[in-house]
Amino acid sequence: MARGKFITLEGGEGAGKSTQCTALAAVLRDQGLEVLETREPGGSPGAEEIRELLVHGSAGRWDAQTEALLVFAARRDHFVTRIEPTLSRGAWVICDRFADSTYAYQGYGRELPLEPLRALYRFTIGERQPDLTLLFDLPVEIGLARAAGRRGAAERFESLTSVFHERVRQGFLAMAAAEPQRFAHIDATQPLEDVTLEVRRSVAARLGVPL
Amino acid sequence: MARGKFITLEGGEGAGKSTQCTALAAVLRDQGLEVLETREPGGSPGAEEIRELLVHGSAGRWDAQTEALLVFAARRDHFVTRIEPTLSRGAWVICDRFADSTYAYQGYGRELPLEPLRALYRFTIGERQPDLTLLFDLPVEIGLARAAGRRGAAERFESLTSVFHERVRQGFLAMAAAEPQRFAHIDATQPLEDVTLEVRRSVAARLGVPL
Repeated sequence: MARGKFITLEGGEGAGKSTQCTALAAVLRDQGLEVLETREPGGSPGAEEIRELLVHGSAGRWDAQTEALLVFAARRDHFVTRIEPTLSRGAWVICDRFADSTYAYQGYGRELPLEPLRALYRFTIGERQPDLTLLFDLPVEIGLARAAGRRGAAERFESLTSVFHERVRQGFLAMAAAEPQRFAHIDATQPLEDVTLEVRRSVAARLGVPL
Repeated sequence: MARGKFITLEGGEGAGKSTQCTALAAVLRDQGLEVLETREPGGSPGAEEIRELLVHGSAGRWDAQTEALLVFAARRDHFVTRIEPTLSRGAWVICDRFADSTYAYQGYGRELPLEPLRALYRFTIGERQPDLTLLFDLPVEIGLARAAGRRGAAERFESLTSVFHERVRQGFLAMAAAEPQRFAHIDATQPLEDVTLEVRRSVAARLGVPL
């Protein structure tokens, strides 16, 4: 059985990742593929418990290093108990946020140096990378305004300053520029249907599925 | 104000660390020192919440990497919110288990390579080390028999095999041999009063306090 493909969706707040995650899973399933749709932090019972520690309480509850360690602990549990077994049996995995979010938020955003975060990645995941990372990019003001429209989804990072969110955006763009073979840049300011279409085309072109 | 001293107590199960921790704190306080007596994992409100994830559930709940990441997340919170501020204001800190337990249990015991654990230490703590580490050493059978005598204190690692605990013991001994300037080896098979006396003498000799 061929190994399944691992697709991650990344980007700032209000970029529409969750909607696109579900839409992409649906079109892949229409192709007869088995698809696990998941998200981080969380995605497995253990990781969801760790997520609770991350998303509750004030934004200053954990410093950047503690937050990064908790995020990678959750990622390790998610990866070894769900992602890797799914890919191994030939199913596809679509994950709403993965390690690039840690580089973007704790690295570029909270200004931790990137190299120790990359070392944490190697400790946690090893050498494996997503087969494709879709970066949903849009200006910070637009994203935050959209995110503000869906309260209840309000989480910690949304309370941080727009300077922070601008660093996060520039971080994602820098990573996408550095790894063009893995990243596909999606203009998330487009109307929803156009974003969905661009996602479908990117996945078809990069991973060779007829979508 | 001179920086306080940081003393860690390490060793296998049933070595009497907790008792000695309290006894040592008392004699140091008799010298007029302010002493914080603490323990890991835990020791700060955030770290205690992470500890809950570590000590509840079955022994196989987290793999060794996830466990190490959670332990270091708890350690970071404990260190930055309690240990470092205490030392900075000139008070002493006595900690029942610290990073050497992670090397011993997750490294030697669960057989994770040591170098990535050392990299996690640098990410979490930086270059600082305890001023003195008291290693309470005793044969595994004796320690496990003692630990079995105080149920309620029964925690996850005590259910692991004696082969595991022997690797842990040998790991502690190897670390103590590699860093004789930091470690003091205490023979924990001695009667309680003799162990207490040896601890007092070690602290007096190594840290220059008249105990």
